Amino acid sequence: MKQIIEYIDKNKNNYINELKEFLKIPSISNDPNHKADIIKCAQFVKTKLVNAGLNKVKVIKTKGHPLVYGEWLKANGKPTVLIYGHYDVQPVDPIELWDNPPFEPIIKSNKIFARGATDDKGQAFMHIKSVEAFLKKTGKLPLNVKFIIEGEEEVGSSSLEQFIDENKKLLECDAVLISDTSLYDVGTPTLTYGLRGLAYMEVEVTGPKKDLHSGGFGGAVANPINILAGMINKLMDKNGKITIPTFYDDVAKLTKKERESFKKLKFSDKKFAKEINVAELKGEKGFSTLERLWVRPTLDCNGIIGGFTGDGAKTVLPSKVKAKISMRLVPNQDTKKIAKAFIKYIKSIAPKSVKVKVSDLHGANPSVTSLDDKSTIAASKAMEKAFGKKIVYVREGGSVPIVPVFAKKLNAPVVLMGLGLNTENLHSPNEHFNLDHFQLGIKSSAYFLEEFAK
Amino acid sequence: MKQIIEYIDKNKNNYINELKEFLKIPSISNDPNHKADIIKCAQFVKTKLVNAGLNKVKVIKTKGHPLVYGEWLKANGKPTVLIYGHYDVQPVDPIELWDNPPFEPIIKSNKIFARGATDDKGQAFMHIKSVEAFLKKTGKLPLNVKFIIEGEEEVGSSSLEQFIDENKKLLECDAVLISDTSLYDVGTPTLTYGLRGLAYMEVEVTGPKKDLHSGGFGGAVANPINILAGMINKLMDKNGKITIPTFYDDVAKLTKKERESFKKLKFSDKKFAKEINVAELKGEKGFSTLERLWVRPTLDCNGIIGGFTGDGAKTVLPSKVKAKISMRLVPNQDTKKIAKAFIKYIKSIAPKSVKVKVSDLHGANPSVTSLDDKSTIAASKAMEKAFGKKIVYVREGGSVPIVPVFAKKLNAPVVLMGLGLNTENLHSPNEHFNLDHFQLGIKSSAYFLEEFAK
Repeated sequence: MKQIIEYIDKNKNNYINELKEFLKIPSISNDPNHKADIIKCAQFVKTKLVNAGLNKVKVIKTKGHPLVYGEWLKANGKPTVLIYGHYDVQPVDPIELWDNPPFEPIIKSNKIFARGATDDKGQAFMHIKSVEAFLKKTGKLPLNVKFIIEGEEEVGSSSLEQFIDENKKLLECDAVLISDTSLYDVGTPTLTYGLRGLAYMEVEVTGPKKDLHSGGFGGAVANPINILAGMINKLMDKNGKITIPTFYDDVAKLTKKERESFKKLKFSDKKFAKEINVAELKGEKGFSTLERLWVRPTLDCNGIIGGFTGDGAKTVLPSKVKAKISMRLVPNQDTKKIAKAFIKYIKSIAPKSVKVKVSDLHGANPSVTSLDDKSTIAASKAMEKAFGKKIVYVREGGSVPIVPVFAKKLNAPVVLMGLGLNTENLHSPNEHFNLDHFQLGIKSSAYFLEEFAK
Repeated sequence: MKQIIEYIDKNKNNYINELKEFLKIPSISNDPNHKADIIKCAQFVKTKLVNAGLNKVKVIKTKGHPLVYGEWLKANGKPTVLIYGHYDVQPVDPIELWDNPPFEPIIKSNKIFARGATDDKGQAFMHIKSVEAFLKKTGKLPLNVKFIIEGEEEVGSSSLEQFIDENKKLLECDAVLISDTSLYDVGTPTLTYGLRGLAYMEVEVTGPKKDLHSGGFGGAVANPINILAGMINKLMDKNGKITIPTFYDDVAKLTKKERESFKKLKFSDKKFAKEINVAELKGEKGFSTLERLWVRPTLDCNGIIGGFTGDGAKTVLPSKVKAKISMRLVPNQDTKKIAKAFIKYIKSIAPKSVKVKVSDLHGANPSVTSLDDKSTIAASKAMEKAFGKKIVYVREGGSVPIVPVFAKKLNAPVVLMGLGLNTENLHSPNEHFNLDHFQLGIKSSAYFLEEFAK
């Protein structure tokens, strides 16, 4: 193992340079204009898997963006790990808030800045490099490895989900290993044992058939923006509780043990508020910040647009307004059930004076993984070895929609060995990835292969 | 008078062709990119005044967009009328909803379609043509006439206001005549004796210093869109009453006589709702639709934007959201007082978890004119002659900010002889002007010159 770690140390700069190339490809999955970049990015991943020494590497066409597969199955009698990652990235807007162009990676203070740096190119790349280290240095791996890298994580992983359904034998494994979550803190080895789910809706409210003069019509006609504001306001009560009927029915209760373990993490509200520059934190009454982030469902408006939004004053009574509203879900909520409840409720609170259209844009179920599983134990040991520190167990507020799908359809535990940080601006301008963590991630991955093989 | 009317009839097509040229100039006053078009448009108006036979015609530079002045003061001992209009127009967005390009005038069903057709180029042009008819046909006018045509009506008339302050002698008159309002119905001669005022604000709510991942942060931090929705919701109660303290303090009470006279107009809620394609009308409880439009103040969101507004799903917890919120005011509300009350209230209802910035973008005072004034009586007779029908008296929901300024600073009655229609899409896509009304307006203007001279 020592020679593997030395090899990884020696190649540090190569890894960074290769990651830069990966980050230069603007593989934005929700934008049809970037279709060619998506293809280019899948080819890049394929080349990297081939160079790492994997077999049967291929780019697999789907109805959506392509998947990349590769395997090394020569460790007879040893367990098989399926390593998952995604090469697609979030859009870049608001582009004007980036200090550097999002697809021209730059290193500052030992962090690499680019869209996709931490979510998920940097993290997916760690595993390719750990496998490469074994194969280049020793010609073999301590266990069997399969890679599946997708290009639709940021838009719902629907092609991968179908591929899993149709290729259960190909993807069969003893554990799924994913790095697409965060460390609890800089330099703290962390395993994430729970993720929230998501139900993402778009609500369009239409009043008059066209924009009207607010002088000639104001006072006579319902204003769709005012109406939608009222409807959004009705989605949560004063205590931050979501008011959609049946919404909390399936929410798993926070255990006393969990509450105690979160308390031990000594999370500082004050520090957190300062980091994001707000005067105070806010959320559901009766729960700590970590509880609200990890084990409680939430509702957020992700965007809103309607009427005149240019500079100056235009006295219009708008015809339409559109809001994106999403809910983070927790075990054992079901995304489809919640979407249905949302649609029913939002329509029920709309006055007759407007028309309401609701679209279900995106969904993911929440998930939890047992801390007693062999794979979780191996991952804990691996990270402790790499970091030289004791592991902490956390949950995460975000969703990796494919996680519950893997768990259910492949009947395998999912290990979330995330090396990102919540402060690394994933989904925001100036996304970056800590290069120490990148290197520690490659080592953690290598140690995991060793530990899980035992 | 007969020969004047015949002359106007004979020149109908010329007037339309000249109006087309006027409408081709994209004189959008709120957009700095159209500065050159504004200048071009002022020159166009100057040329038309010169051609009409007016004296001392000049384009007057201001801090903002230029004014155009012209006069004919050879009717010794006769009264003087100051004719006002504006050559600037509203922006054109949403451009995609126009059936024809907004600055390529086209005639369909005897209506001319273009931005500015009814507001106010078509209407201002009527008076130039009536004066021209007199001067071309008889070489003189029955009274003294001054023209002041401005280029900042859609952005608050601030240069004109300053010009009035500094040129009271030049603009001295016995009445101000303005066509920038609407007929009650197609073919119905109408005088408008009251206008609403305006207070137009922009509210920006900022939560975290940058856009955050709604998974990683949702539930811990106040979401500015949700917060702003709640604040907007708080601006009006269930009965459509505005909740800003002191807001109704100065509102003139609706008289029994007024209520009766509005009733006689037989306004159809059903027809109105059908025209704008809404299932039901909505507004302040306890008042009829005409009352709500003409004598009651209102509050409308004119636009809102924040967070992710592109296609698909982006799981962002936005940093900022911005709304334009305007109030229509009625006698005797004061725009500055209302703006102050709004700012105080909106700040008072903002939670500590966000920052709120309010800008006062635009304001206008409401106004009423006496129906017993000599100028109003002359205008009534003039329109009745032109239309061959009995006049109706209405108020209007919109604002012409300069009206109360004229009334106060020149100490002159303001006659609102509007020939537009509320259904002509002013401030909206597919703005148009009824060409019968255009022609009737030229005749009404000519009759007014005759009547007011008596």
